Amino acid sequence: MAVYTHVDPDDLAGLVTRYDIGTVVSCKGIAEGVENSNFLLETSGGRFILTLYEKRVQEGDLPFFVDLLDHLATRNCPVPAMIRDRDGVAIQRVAGRAACIIQFLPGISLTNPTPGQCEAAGASLGTMHRAAAHFAGGRENSMGRLHWRGVAEAAGDLDAVIPGLQAIVDDELAFFEANWPEALPAHVVHADLFPDNVLMLGETVTGLIDFYFAATDFRAYDVAVTHASWTFSADGTRCDADRAQALMRGYAREIALSDAEIAALPLLARGASLRFLLTRAHDWIHTPADALVTRKDPAPFLNRLLCYRAADAASLFATA
Amino acid sequence: MAVYTHVDPDDLAGLVTRYDIGTVVSCKGIAEGVENSNFLLETSGGRFILTLYEKRVQEGDLPFFVDLLDHLATRNCPVPAMIRDRDGVAIQRVAGRAACIIQFLPGISLTNPTPGQCEAAGASLGTMHRAAAHFAGGRENSMGRLHWRGVAEAAGDLDAVIPGLQAIVDDELAFFEANWPEALPAHVVHADLFPDNVLMLGETVTGLIDFYFAATDFRAYDVAVTHASWTFSADGTRCDADRAQALMRGYAREIALSDAEIAALPLLARGASLRFLLTRAHDWIHTPADALVTRKDPAPFLNRLLCYRAADAASLFATA
Repeated sequence: MAVYTHVDPDDLAGLVTRYDIGTVVSCKGIAEGVENSNFLLETSGGRFILTLYEKRVQEGDLPFFVDLLDHLATRNCPVPAMIRDRDGVAIQRVAGRAACIIQFLPGISLTNPTPGQCEAAGASLGTMHRAAAHFAGGRENSMGRLHWRGVAEAAGDLDAVIPGLQAIVDDELAFFEANWPEALPAHVVHADLFPDNVLMLGETVTGLIDFYFAATDFRAYDVAVTHASWTFSADGTRCDADRAQALMRGYAREIALSDAEIAALPLLARGASLRFLLTRAHDWIHTPADALVTRKDPAPFLNRLLCYRAADAASLFATA
Repeated sequence: MAVYTHVDPDDLAGLVTRYDIGTVVSCKGIAEGVENSNFLLETSGGRFILTLYEKRVQEGDLPFFVDLLDHLATRNCPVPAMIRDRDGVAIQRVAGRAACIIQFLPGISLTNPTPGQCEAAGASLGTMHRAAAHFAGGRENSMGRLHWRGVAEAAGDLDAVIPGLQAIVDDELAFFEANWPEALPAHVVHADLFPDNVLMLGETVTGLIDFYFAATDFRAYDVAVTHASWTFSADGTRCDADRAQALMRGYAREIALSDAEIAALPLLARGASLRFLLTRAHDWIHTPADALVTRKDPAPFLNRLLCYRAADAASLFATA
């Protein structure tokens, strides 16, 4: 939630001139995206998102994201395509930063999805996976399993966040190093499909957005991330069976997971919970309490981890 | 620049149902307005701004703002009218806060206005004053001259912001207490018409916005605030004669200031500079340096004050 960079109106007009999208009518900074500057840009030709890439997104990764979104958009996934200028260029420079003009998608992000909305989200994830499986590009998951120990060490004193957390994290890291699956179906996945990153109107998914964590990983891990972020109470202590079954049912309409994948889901979701627990704990420690950026509480993802670690966790992934 | 309050999609849908504006298509928090939560709301009926009022705007003042904007909008001023629901109600409650759905206006805010744009802004200020002069309502200017000593005392150690500032401020406060004019034409004025608060397309003013400091004061003081905020270099050391003349020329097309008002302009602009110097110094002292809200440097308004205090300051208000 941030707009960091100011765009001079003359620079904006100059940028828009490169495109076949008319002239600027309005441009307002929006509180969206993790660490980019985003603007809702209206021109005489329509509405767009203007994104200026700040520190978190590596500029060298941008061509990967452009290609991925192009690939998905042309395969009926409701993802925001990056608009190309008259010379075919999608990645521009504005105010000293890499910048893209991106398709605007309608819809709003949910805070309390209904089972019907979870089913739609699951189906949309499956549709996206079917398309992504044929995407030629790849990107190392910099927030993937091999990096969790590094995130934990960079975070600092985990016990200062939640007493006892360090020992739990050490156990989990050792467990995953011994037990993480080796050979499940993998391709480029979203890896962060929280409700924030899905736009909906009623029970229709109108947008899958914010692909800046997209990377090569198990498709079942992406299901696990989505399960962890869509089906729990806010405090993470309780998985809502109706939501969870609906999510898995929606996904199953598009993709039939293998027995090995289904068996791995509790472990993968436990890993996904650790991933968000660690990054939130890191940010909790490194963000001043009085900064206006919202620090996200790590505890709800510890609670999810404990749910997924329980003996009966497989039942959370049933479709009925 | 802030969105403080989250609006639940169900609450939003419920709010919109009260109005004849269709159904929600999109709603994005925007980084606009000083201390309110603002959203760009798109419905099947059009685009709107949804504002939730946070601490700075007194809820009791809202009917005044609604009436003022109604008055101005019906008199050809490009101000954002507050939309009324089917029962004629403009002020609603959302997420525990007073909230209004407001007309969306096209245009962007300038950072480096040309003389032609300054002339248009001056003319638009004059048009607005002609309409405001007949507005029956009134509101004490809580940021007006009588409150500056209080702001200075609440700020704390002014010398910690700029060495020597305390003595300058003490002198200015004493000077204004002895010399502030008593009987110039007054009515409700904007009192904060910085370039941020004017939307333009080319040389056309498409919106005068953010009336939340509007209050009863000298119309010439409003001219002085606008002069101080539109015609100076960023560091406040130099008034651009072309911009200044254009601004005054535009205003003069609509309103012929009296000789007494013209004579008072340097003093009023010196006062306006003190007002923004003081509030910025206050916020500078009371905002943590690492907070993500941008602290505005007070120094450029001290520099303006010194310009307006110079012997030849009257020339800055010439129309040619």
